[in-house]
Amino acid sequence: MYLHGRNVLKELLGIDSSRLRIKRILFTNQRNVDTQLLELAKEAKVKGFRIEEMPPEKLANLCREKKHQGVVIDLKEFSYVDSEKMLDNLEKQSTATIVLLDQIQDPHNLGAIIRTSVAVGADAIAITSSNSAEITPAVVKVSAGLAFSIPVIKIVNMAQFEKSLKERGFWIYASDMNGTPYYENEYSEKSAIIFGNEGKGVRRLVKERSDVLISIPMERTVDSLNVAAAAAIILFDRRRQLTVRGA
Amino acid sequence: MYLHGRNVLKELLGIDSSRLRIKRILFTNQRNVDTQLLELAKEAKVKGFRIEEMPPEKLANLCREKKHQGVVIDLKEFSYVDSEKMLDNLEKQSTATIVLLDQIQDPHNLGAIIRTSVAVGADAIAITSSNSAEITPAVVKVSAGLAFSIPVIKIVNMAQFEKSLKERGFWIYASDMNGTPYYENEYSEKSAIIFGNEGKGVRRLVKERSDVLISIPMERTVDSLNVAAAAAIILFDRRRQLTVRGA
Repeated sequence: MYLHGRNVLKELLGIDSSRLRIKRILFTNQRNVDTQLLELAKEAKVKGFRIEEMPPEKLANLCREKKHQGVVIDLKEFSYVDSEKMLDNLEKQSTATIVLLDQIQDPHNLGAIIRTSVAVGADAIAITSSNSAEITPAVVKVSAGLAFSIPVIKIVNMAQFEKSLKERGFWIYASDMNGTPYYENEYSEKSAIIFGNEGKGVRRLVKERSDVLISIPMERTVDSLNVAAAAAIILFDRRRQLTVRGA
Repeated sequence: MYLHGRNVLKELLGIDSSRLRIKRILFTNQRNVDTQLLELAKEAKVKGFRIEEMPPEKLANLCREKKHQGVVIDLKEFSYVDSEKMLDNLEKQSTATIVLLDQIQDPHNLGAIIRTSVAVGADAIAITSSNSAEITPAVVKVSAGLAFSIPVIKIVNMAQFEKSLKERGFWIYASDMNGTPYYENEYSEKSAIIFGNEGKGVRRLVKERSDVLISIPMERTVDSLNVAAAAAIILFDRRRQLTVRGA
């Protein structure tokens, strides 16, 4: 996977995660580059990464973007985490939060929800394997590199995954216009919260299998919120509630 | 201003606002278009809009995008609202919310914050006139057409605008990492809430002139939230507080 850009490199250099595997960092071989780029190259060297230099056109070919700002990062493919192993680990924790995305299709939304999930302290993100955006360079960029800071599970069988969650003591909440207002909901210490597709929301069967539907009260003239905004509101309010409760 | 796409047209047809001025709706003159497009054309006709047909290449030239899905909407330029007139109107209300954006530069963030602001019931959005994204077709698209559902003010002199706000009984809150947790803050019925630039946050002088700094507590390993996520969290929590208070 090839990423590009100075901010992205800066963010990746700041991430301490075994899931982030940088193969090489490729800089432009142009002379007279500015000090920002030189400093980034120096920092990358100090941290022990393999550095290469090549013509800017070659960088553009690799990352398929002319505006690479003189730097391309060559990463190992994104590795998803095994769901059973993940759930076994979480079972030992007294509180746990899983963000479950039911067919989110816009890479921008997926990246934004990942960034929010890491900031709120969620333990894992689960995405459906069909009809979903995957972890691509665009998603990593919007996530500010944080896609590597949280385990991401790809769910093949949603019904089976929900069953596994319940067996391990999780309560499942699905966001839906017809649910309880999110701030009136008392979340379980172990919560999986489902956000649905941009157009259709959470699928009917998925909603039926969940324990509680939660909604975000808003102006009547507005159809719906952007799903990344909805996730930010609900996830941070759960954090607020647990803080106030002292959990 | 030219917008394109079926979802965008659908959203615009649903908006009832004197600020939205559709000059013409341009459809492809190709035969054998699908029923969705025919239905949209029918709906547009019923609502009394001027319809024209032209070759798809011409549509692409107008909106500068090949993937226009057979429809381009020709709008009057976006009209900003006069700040003094706006503030005079709001003075009569017992509660009012102004979302103030200090040099937000990413059109995606601006569009997302507009959509959130309309959903939360804010009365106006104010953007700085320098170093800010403006209301472009890209912004309107991300806002789901809602940029036309809320007055947008362009601030030339921030200090003067803040003075005007205070004279009219507004309290000014600025989001900042070092503020009071947002859920502990008791908002005034009349609130202006400031969100800052993606990289630098709210400018120092702007912070100093505001009444209260508010923060979003999050995991220590994370630098910051995306500003559109931060706005969603803070604005909806203010709505929650006012609802709980019965305001």
